[in-house]
Amino acid sequence: MAIELYWGSGSPFAWRVMLTLEVKGLAYESKLLEFSKGDHKTPAYLKLNPRGKVPTLKDGDFVVYESLAIMSYLDRKYPTPPLFGNNAEETALIWQAISECESYFTTAGDKVVRPMFFGKGLDKVEEIQQAAEAIRHELKALDDRLASRTWLVGENISAADIAVFPLIQLILRAASKEAAQPFNLNWLPLATFYPNVARWAERIEALPNYSRTYPPHWKG
Amino acid sequence: MAIELYWGSGSPFAWRVMLTLEVKGLAYESKLLEFSKGDHKTPAYLKLNPRGKVPTLKDGDFVVYESLAIMSYLDRKYPTPPLFGNNAEETALIWQAISECESYFTTAGDKVVRPMFFGKGLDKVEEIQQAAEAIRHELKALDDRLASRTWLVGENISAADIAVFPLIQLILRAASKEAAQPFNLNWLPLATFYPNVARWAERIEALPNYSRTYPPHWKG
Repeated sequence: MAIELYWGSGSPFAWRVMLTLEVKGLAYESKLLEFSKGDHKTPAYLKLNPRGKVPTLKDGDFVVYESLAIMSYLDRKYPTPPLFGNNAEETALIWQAISECESYFTTAGDKVVRPMFFGKGLDKVEEIQQAAEAIRHELKALDDRLASRTWLVGENISAADIAVFPLIQLILRAASKEAAQPFNLNWLPLATFYPNVARWAERIEALPNYSRTYPPHWKG
Repeated sequence: MAIELYWGSGSPFAWRVMLTLEVKGLAYESKLLEFSKGDHKTPAYLKLNPRGKVPTLKDGDFVVYESLAIMSYLDRKYPTPPLFGNNAEETALIWQAISECESYFTTAGDKVVRPMFFGKGLDKVEEIQQAAEAIRHELKALDDRLASRTWLVGENISAADIAVFPLIQLILRAASKEAAQPFNLNWLPLATFYPNVARWAERIEALPNYSRTYPPHWKG
């Protein structure tokens, strides 16, 4: 039976799984949910994922949700190429990079992205500025790290790169919104502020079938 | 060279690593940092962990921080007993449980624990009540799951149990504080509200050397 992926356009967490599937060369059936239609809250979907979030992956009879859990599953079930390291030290540094992304980047990103995308909470100027500063701190750390490296950990693309990349795309898109202009977020253009991150992002964008993973409603 | 663990008393994240080390029967040198003395912000410690947080693990020359990264490292380096599953499906469900803990339980827990422990933000009554409700929802889900299971995933203790347990201990301790009494958090006594979670917690407390992992300043 084919792998089925339930996802939503623009979800960085779903994007992680799509990149994982493409890097591993796995065919899958795309189940695009329309948030605006409430596709993620139907009884049928809530049976697969009681939290009503994306992504959810179904592989035969087996169902798993939460992006990092899906990535871990795919890596163990379909081990080529390995995305969680070739030895204990690489595994450690990959999960360290992912954990740092979740604890610092994703949390701060949320506080900037939501107001810019949905116009809600734009009056919380101080909170947005603090989160933006935290994001700049994380981007700087990534830029320093990527000055001498092709990928975040090890010699090849790993789950660390795949987990971090969609979150960066999301905050870049937030920065391009009109609502963001008064805030001087100072992370666009990426190549000016964080050139090593920009070159790394280009490497991911050059992956085969990358365009299949790009959020459809961001195109054009 | 011995494993060295840098930790702080009462950190649920450090506790995860101590439980992992005990379950794997690994000897380690305990490096207890005193937060009140700023031990976690000294130049020597910041060289090991630039974020100045605990836990950090040093194994020979190799250094890793972030609790889940340390657990992943230890599991790959010292694979017996395996804590991240015996097959892809178990690995998936273990990471799913951990991710749900991080996304829903830890976040909500933070909003309750900080006010109760430090007395700051106790006036944000609505935020605390909402977070408490989210915690009750998560505890209920765990209780339902544990009605028919000994451990959260699979037939043996796994990283899921180890990751979740210290967070539960933390919110129970928060609920026992005087500042918590007006809030009617309704999760103490645990055996009354969530009997299956209580029995599961007892199984973890019965592990050999459990007492070595218990936060020293919580004793007596």
